[in-house]
Amino acid sequence: MRIIGIDCGSERTGYGVIDSNGKRHSLVTFGVIRTSPKDPFPERLRTIYLAIRKLMDDYAPQAVAVEDIFYSANVKTALKLAHVRGVTLCAAADAGVQVGEYSPLEVKGSVVGYGRADKAQVQLMVQSLLRLPEPVKSLDASDALAVSICHANLAASRSNGWVK
Amino acid sequence: MRIIGIDCGSERTGYGVIDSNGKRHSLVTFGVIRTSPKDPFPERLRTIYLAIRKLMDDYAPQAVAVEDIFYSANVKTALKLAHVRGVTLCAAADAGVQVGEYSPLEVKGSVVGYGRADKAQVQLMVQSLLRLPEPVKSLDASDALAVSICHANLAASRSNGWVK
Repeated sequence: MRIIGIDCGSERTGYGVIDSNGKRHSLVTFGVIRTSPKDPFPERLRTIYLAIRKLMDDYAPQAVAVEDIFYSANVKTALKLAHVRGVTLCAAADAGVQVGEYSPLEVKGSVVGYGRADKAQVQLMVQSLLRLPEPVKSLDASDALAVSICHANLAASRSNGWVK
Repeated sequence: MRIIGIDCGSERTGYGVIDSNGKRHSLVTFGVIRTSPKDPFPERLRTIYLAIRKLMDDYAPQAVAVEDIFYSANVKTALKLAHVRGVTLCAAADAGVQVGEYSPLEVKGSVVGYGRADKAQVQLMVQSLLRLPEPVKSLDASDALAVSICHANLAASRSNGWVK
């Protein structure tokens, strides 16, 4: 099964594509969609939307995995993120691909085995699970790969279709 | 100038199209995009996105006007709304149309002359300003028309392009 994980952000949206049989995962690609804060927000949303649609076309994943929004810290930031997440989910629906949503706790728990793991631990486990020669330096891309691995681990145990 | 006002909502997204010379406004059309809570959220976002794109094609507005998100009440609802707003802004950017964003206070202040006006007062003023034989019954559509009137009143005094 091919899965694309997306780590939404208005300036940097990380993505990571893996192939997985549910037990063993292998890297297909990863990267970051960047937008400039100088550009109008609607334009930036469009850039992200079109880039994700292109990823769907190029890599034809069977599933899209995204994190839930964690908003206790800053509601304004969370609302901005939710706009990006809106176009991300729309791009997934355009491609007719199922969407899995996971809390940060689920992602860390699934990848590191410990829900309160820090970013560096996630980065090292992503490297290890994908058998990469070095860690993925971009935390946005590494986090996106972690969400895709989480989906690979958990999707089988959940119902099909849009999870949640 | 042709303006489309959009009142975002995950179940009902109201829209209202007006023509305006900045002083006198006339109704072009209004309506509500409905989605079912039974459908997966990504599908609902896609339905709204495609419907707004179609409105852009059908009515070719020069501007899109939307309300800011007011989130003191319920953060979870506000986050859901922000997803809808994300695809709305993306559809505006697709069409290359400028976007104006206004606070609820600005909309009510501009339409009723009083920022704390209630929905019924807004409804009656929308009817009066557009010289309609009766009030627009759908509050979602009436609110969307109010945002478009607000944009017509305020846009001239602001810079072009994406406002804010």
